[in-house]
Amino acid sequence: MSDLTLYIANKNYSSWSFRPWIALTAAGIPFREVLIPFGPGATNPQFRELSPTGRVPVLRHGGIRVWESLAIIEYVAELFPDAGLWPKDPGFRSMARSVSMEMLSGFHALRGACPMNMRRPVRAIELPVGVEANVRRIEAIWRDMRQMSGGPFLFGPFSAADAMFASVVNRFSAYDLVSDQDTLDYMAAIKAHPAWMAWETAALAESWIVPEDEA
Amino acid sequence: MSDLTLYIANKNYSSWSFRPWIALTAAGIPFREVLIPFGPGATNPQFRELSPTGRVPVLRHGGIRVWESLAIIEYVAELFPDAGLWPKDPGFRSMARSVSMEMLSGFHALRGACPMNMRRPVRAIELPVGVEANVRRIEAIWRDMRQMSGGPFLFGPFSAADAMFASVVNRFSAYDLVSDQDTLDYMAAIKAHPAWMAWETAALAESWIVPEDEA
Ligand SMILES: N[C@@H](CCC(=O)N[C@@H](CS)C(=O)NCC(=O)O)C(=O)O
Ligand SMILES: N[C@@H](CCC(=O)N[C@@H](CS)C(=O)NCC(=O)O)C(=O)O
Repeated sequence: MSDLTLYIANKNYSSWSFRPWIALTAAGIPFREVLIPFGPGATNPQFRELSPTGRVPVLRHGGIRVWESLAIIEYVAELFPDAGLWPKDPGFRSMARSVSMEMLSGFHALRGACPMNMRRPVRAIELPVGVEANVRRIEAIWRDMRQMSGGPFLFGPFSAADAMFASVVNRFSAYDLVSDQDTLDYMAAIKAHPAWMAWETAALAESWIVPEDEA
Repeated sequence: MSDLTLYIANKNYSSWSFRPWIALTAAGIPFREVLIPFGPGATNPQFRELSPTGRVPVLRHGGIRVWESLAIIEYVAELFPDAGLWPKDPGFRSMARSVSMEMLSGFHALRGACPMNMRRPVRAIELPVGVEANVRRIEAIWRDMRQMSGGPFLFGPFSAADAMFASVVNRFSAYDLVSDQDTLDYMAAIKAHPAWMAWETAALAESWIVPEDEA
């Protein structure tokens, strides 16, 4: 057992928690998980004690504390250089980071309109301006990277880049946003991954409701 | 001369271009710079030929193309591991990435209301909701990191984290947003850096006007 502790929120709703969790789990990296559920306002004052941003996820490793989902992944990738969190090929690795940072910094229309919700029954909603363009760009990333690598994941084997898009796979399903076969194939590959299934099973077993995330 | 080419937009306005440019320049990494000015709508159709996002900055290195400012920095940090782009200490490095990713993913109120504008005369504006909280969090990052490292920059010597906040230094000045002495000390250190001064001199020599960024 390593001495990594990952603080997360509800598995049903916390898309940023999902990213490092699935990255580490898929890479077989041992960590302790502490789940602090959202309270009123889809937040929790306890997050403030853990992170200077007042948000989760947060990783603790001895005296070191890392916040921001992708910074956590980078930290663990340096600790476990052979775990394959990032692709080995420098060209692939640079693109994996480029698309991961697109996800970290963008797609606000989609993120705002269609919150991750693992137990949500499939149902389309009216889409605000910008969501369609976000969906199209994400589909292009998935298609182009898988064509280049040969799949099944973005850069061949499951990597941090797949982890960064994991919550989008749920959104595309739950809000019935896509029909392209390439897109559906990628989503099926992700949903068949044991790390996805483990998170989903735990999410479905939760009973907390966060009204802000029920769109 | 290395064979890195960095594509950027106007030095007066392009905050995301500024970040990798000042990171590479401050680290003494040789690169060729290609500036493609913004056209109508603060964009340029040529960006689309360079990057799948249609945005700058973009880095080319032989057949490899990297987009997203922080992915560019990560790529170059791997190419030049001794250039000090990231702090050497793992704990400092993890925090440098955490705060860099806060910048990449957040502070939207500040970014929207107060566009970078190197030649803007100092003038306060009415601040929309959210800007004050952004300013306070950034001041806390700067104070806490410099207290921890001893300064003068966030993690001691100039690093990628300072590069990520470079455009904020301009905004804090140009829109008269801060008065705390710690904050002003950090801004003075950044503005005295030769890489900052080189960018600023070039920005002031530009004559293009981007109305969208004249707040
Ligand atoms: N950019 C951050 C986003 C983190 C984030 O927004 N976390 C949410 C949960 S998914 C949170 O803590 N919300 C509570 C709050 O903002 O008060 C990351 O990548 O980690
Ligand atoms: N998250 C991106 C943001 C890049 C970005 O927004 N670049 C602006 C210039 S500062 C741009 O290319 N705008 C033109 C457009 O969006 O069409 C990064 O970090 O590189």
